[in-house]
Amino acid sequence: MNDTYQDFKHLMPDWVENEADFELYKIRHSAEHVFNQAVEELFPGKVKRAIGPAIKTGFYNDARWEYTLTEDDFAKIEARMAEIVKANLPFVRVDVSLEEAREMFKENPFKQELLSEFAASDQKLTLYYTGNLGQHVFVDLCRGPHVDSTNKIKAFKLMSIAGAYWRGDEKNEMLTRVYGTAFDSQAKLDEFVHLQEEAKLRDHRKLAKELDLLVFSDLVGSGLPMYTPRGSRLRNAVYNYSRELNRKIGYDEVNTPNFNRGELFKISGHYDKYKDDMFKVASSYSEEEMFLKPMNCPQHTQIFASQLRSYKDLPYRVADFSNLARDERPGEMHGIFRSRVFTQDDGHAFVREDQIVEEFQNVAGVIKEALNTYDMNDYYIRLSLRDPNNKEKYLGDDEVWEKAESKLRQMLIDMNYQFKESPGEAAIYGPKMDFMAHDSLGREWQLSTIQLDMNMPTRFGLKYIDSDGSEQTPIMIHRAIVGSERFIGIIIEHFGGAFPVWLSPEQVRIVPISDDQLEYAKQLHQKLFDAGIHVETDSSSERLGNKIRKGQAGKVPYLLIIGRQEVESGKVSIRLRTGEELKEQDVDEFLVKLQDKIKTRSQDLSL
Amino acid sequence: MNDTYQDFKHLMPDWVENEADFELYKIRHSAEHVFNQAVEELFPGKVKRAIGPAIKTGFYNDARWEYTLTEDDFAKIEARMAEIVKANLPFVRVDVSLEEAREMFKENPFKQELLSEFAASDQKLTLYYTGNLGQHVFVDLCRGPHVDSTNKIKAFKLMSIAGAYWRGDEKNEMLTRVYGTAFDSQAKLDEFVHLQEEAKLRDHRKLAKELDLLVFSDLVGSGLPMYTPRGSRLRNAVYNYSRELNRKIGYDEVNTPNFNRGELFKISGHYDKYKDDMFKVASSYSEEEMFLKPMNCPQHTQIFASQLRSYKDLPYRVADFSNLARDERPGEMHGIFRSRVFTQDDGHAFVREDQIVEEFQNVAGVIKEALNTYDMNDYYIRLSLRDPNNKEKYLGDDEVWEKAESKLRQMLIDMNYQFKESPGEAAIYGPKMDFMAHDSLGREWQLSTIQLDMNMPTRFGLKYIDSDGSEQTPIMIHRAIVGSERFIGIIIEHFGGAFPVWLSPEQVRIVPISDDQLEYAKQLHQKLFDAGIHVETDSSSERLGNKIRKGQAGKVPYLLIIGRQEVESGKVSIRLRTGEELKEQDVDEFLVKLQDKIKTRSQDLSL
Repeated sequence: MNDTYQDFKHLMPDWVENEADFELYKIRHSAEHVFNQAVEELFPGKVKRAIGPAIKTGFYNDARWEYTLTEDDFAKIEARMAEIVKANLPFVRVDVSLEEAREMFKENPFKQELLSEFAASDQKLTLYYTGNLGQHVFVDLCRGPHVDSTNKIKAFKLMSIAGAYWRGDEKNEMLTRVYGTAFDSQAKLDEFVHLQEEAKLRDHRKLAKELDLLVFSDLVGSGLPMYTPRGSRLRNAVYNYSRELNRKIGYDEVNTPNFNRGELFKISGHYDKYKDDMFKVASSYSEEEMFLKPMNCPQHTQIFASQLRSYKDLPYRVADFSNLARDERPGEMHGIFRSRVFTQDDGHAFVREDQIVEEFQNVAGVIKEALNTYDMNDYYIRLSLRDPNNKEKYLGDDEVWEKAESKLRQMLIDMNYQFKESPGEAAIYGPKMDFMAHDSLGREWQLSTIQLDMNMPTRFGLKYIDSDGSEQTPIMIHRAIVGSERFIGIIIEHFGGAFPVWLSPEQVRIVPISDDQLEYAKQLHQKLFDAGIHVETDSSSERLGNKIRKGQAGKVPYLLIIGRQEVESGKVSIRLRTGEELKEQDVDEFLVKLQDKIKTRSQDLSL
Repeated sequence: MNDTYQDFKHLMPDWVENEADFELYKIRHSAEHVFNQAVEELFPGKVKRAIGPAIKTGFYNDARWEYTLTEDDFAKIEARMAEIVKANLPFVRVDVSLEEAREMFKENPFKQELLSEFAASDQKLTLYYTGNLGQHVFVDLCRGPHVDSTNKIKAFKLMSIAGAYWRGDEKNEMLTRVYGTAFDSQAKLDEFVHLQEEAKLRDHRKLAKELDLLVFSDLVGSGLPMYTPRGSRLRNAVYNYSRELNRKIGYDEVNTPNFNRGELFKISGHYDKYKDDMFKVASSYSEEEMFLKPMNCPQHTQIFASQLRSYKDLPYRVADFSNLARDERPGEMHGIFRSRVFTQDDGHAFVREDQIVEEFQNVAGVIKEALNTYDMNDYYIRLSLRDPNNKEKYLGDDEVWEKAESKLRQMLIDMNYQFKESPGEAAIYGPKMDFMAHDSLGREWQLSTIQLDMNMPTRFGLKYIDSDGSEQTPIMIHRAIVGSERFIGIIIEHFGGAFPVWLSPEQVRIVPISDDQLEYAKQLHQKLFDAGIHVETDSSSERLGNKIRKGQAGKVPYLLIIGRQEVESGKVSIRLRTGEELKEQDVDEFLVKLQDKIKTRSQDLSL
């Protein structure tokens, strides 16, 4: 038997993009069968398996367990799986009729339900046996694909246990889900496990608490983050950098209210498409229908429309860091990755048609600069297009969409960018270029975006006076440099809290060795503070070793150790958060170098 | 007859504080009688007068007119009033019985209604005659007081016409209201009229439109201002200055969500006291009662409570520029003086009792610095106390209030501040020091505030660990340096749009004399832009005179006129918005001086 990519391509999920991914898919799917076989042998009659697909990070298995499974059981199951793998049993596919299948799995209500659905379709039903027919040790109803035999599963591991509703519907029975993974080499598995553990350690909710960056409160409500003084320094550093980049390419900041009348969203089209995702605002004195705004673009059209604009005034560019809000289901909130309120480094340009290309180039230029500054150079561009099978999800007619999409495609070709087309990922008003960046854990994020919108200006009747005196409709470009506040969560995890000095909420900590140096420490503190440095002094009476350990745990880039010698010489001993000791430096010299590091947004701490 | 201050003090409105104010009151009240007499003579039988009090800015008269009065009629009425004043007729008070009065004013339904109310009280009814009894030319039912005779009205003027419901109730008849004013000298009247005209010209809604600072849109909704690029520069300059002052006295910025659960406001006490002034927020996915927050303090208690704090960590100080919202009645919104959304340069300190005085002194220090920078040095402190007759309006018990109030009073005495006590002006949680400043038009505003709160920390159960290991409740200080965004409206009017250069949305405009200088202008523009200056270039083909006039109308501090000579010499000709020409300067020299003016927030444009 050979399950080939060509045969199965149409059944593969999004993450399977080539032969190598397909091999991984087969390994994981096969590992899941081996897992089932192992638990059937180890817990006979206690497990009714439901489904178990291969996924981007491995596989999972949902089943009804009449035994309280814990992670302590993993070692035993893995040991049995290892034996099955070692036995190198073949996977054998056999066609089966609906009636035969119903009979074979008559004890399993989940399989019966799946078979009833099969009955309504014209798909072919298949079984996969583990072991040669007649000598087989396991069989499951399965459409494949699988590897040829179990020893192709070079490395596997069970990861965690969770609860999951049968078919994802909360009205159904809650099943036990076991997550596992598998790879074609032990090295790849080790790397994956390492990144998983690292991700747990770097979870921004955990780090934000440890480093005192964010506070959540039950009284305030879920999904409503409060940035502490330290968190706000980080947030301000990110936004002030975006402000600098905005200014460089002519985007002027505006400041807009966080709610508005429903009328505005009726015209923009958000009322019809997004109404349920917007929070309603109710006044005691007015019957108006109002909403917290989930995006700034409709209000920005009103700033554009407030004056008569000429072709010479274009591009008219505005940037906005105003509060946005989206109504999220309670279970979907996740730190600042997904919260109910957030901001974006949002911006809109109203341009003439002949200005589109230059505007895209300028924005793409600062996006590249930003991704480089944040040490996220591993990215590609996703050309997000309309879903051709779901045109009613979008605003505007075919002609406009085709024009906008081909314009964007041509621009990417002309600019020589690496890009990937992705139907169904467009905004409701137009296609977009999304910058898909990878963080230090190899995870992919949609960060920056540049979007071409030929619909909203028409809906709002926006006009400018052209050089020939005629009225023309501008084109709207929506863009974000690093995107929403989720980005702050991403960089917390990306840097594991050990930020470059320009992003650090505490850039320098002064550590006096004893109380004798407190007075000098105070003067030094004031000097650095006056120079705009985020500086703290550890004046506690703890031992020096403890103070240093604490500073390193707090990810403070520079610890300045002050003893009798430093007071006398006016120099500072510098310890990096990595533990590295730098050579003693003159205070003023240190300050100049530090300010330069901050100004240039250097990622490197060496002085 | 002599109507003395002592006799009438209990009947006087708030603005009458001394003998001089009382004289003004009498003059204005008398002018209103003279007005009535004049219209009775000029429009016989056409005017049924209702009421007509003296007010802080003059007087008004409400009446039912059977004639369409316009401001064109003012000259004629004023001329007749002048004759009456010149005739120097005495004002004569006469007691009258209810029956006599009813008979005298039987044609006037308004007087009859007032008389019915008098009947229910035990007040004495009086008439005021103009002219000696027997020779009198006018009489009205009136409790006084009045001047002795008409020639005490040294200067008067009719100002405007408006509509007003009888007794202020919109269910009643709409009357015609005529505003006028009167003074004891022509010079004072002239000054008043000048300031009134100036205030009209400086109306921030008018200036904000002319200078492109703010946009309001029906689609967005009333009371929801959008700051344009220029308006945002002004706003950012104000807030960045507050940030600088905050940093100086240890207030660290936090960033907090713009809505929260009702629970938080139940504990803070705002739910009971302010519920109707808060916008409700409704989610599709949750039944929680939530509100847009009208103030930051309750959330800040949650940041304080997020960590265990020791006595060494106090004062713990946070500042916040987050979005706030208050539900205002539609008729009460007024530009950014009163809007539905706004921010404050808000801050809270959690302190030990022994830290209160120093904290107040530090905050008062930066407030004085700020008021000086904004050229608002004419101010006093209002000690705002609880209304002793309405204690149920406030949170907390008598003992705590008495302690807090006497603490604040003693502090003001010790700091040697000029202050005025004002019962009924306290915050719900405690007494406050309000800085009452006067703008360039002499109007009084409550701007800065420092408030002592011994209630909210107890309600939220806030604690810190004292030096002896015991748990103590901190005291909360609420403060704002310039207050809410209303301040931006105030400075627009205070400066009449002609801001000091550090506040100017456009600091420099380059004015090339002809197209030959465009290239040089572009280089100069870039140089200033790169140095962080808000610079524009007028590259239109208009005549130089027009360009200069436009620059001055736009209140641009510095116009740089670039002709052939300037290009050759590398110098700039500088014209101030006042029209003054400065001596030619080297570009770099100009830039250095300009940057210094901005950095020091100088009010003076001279270089």
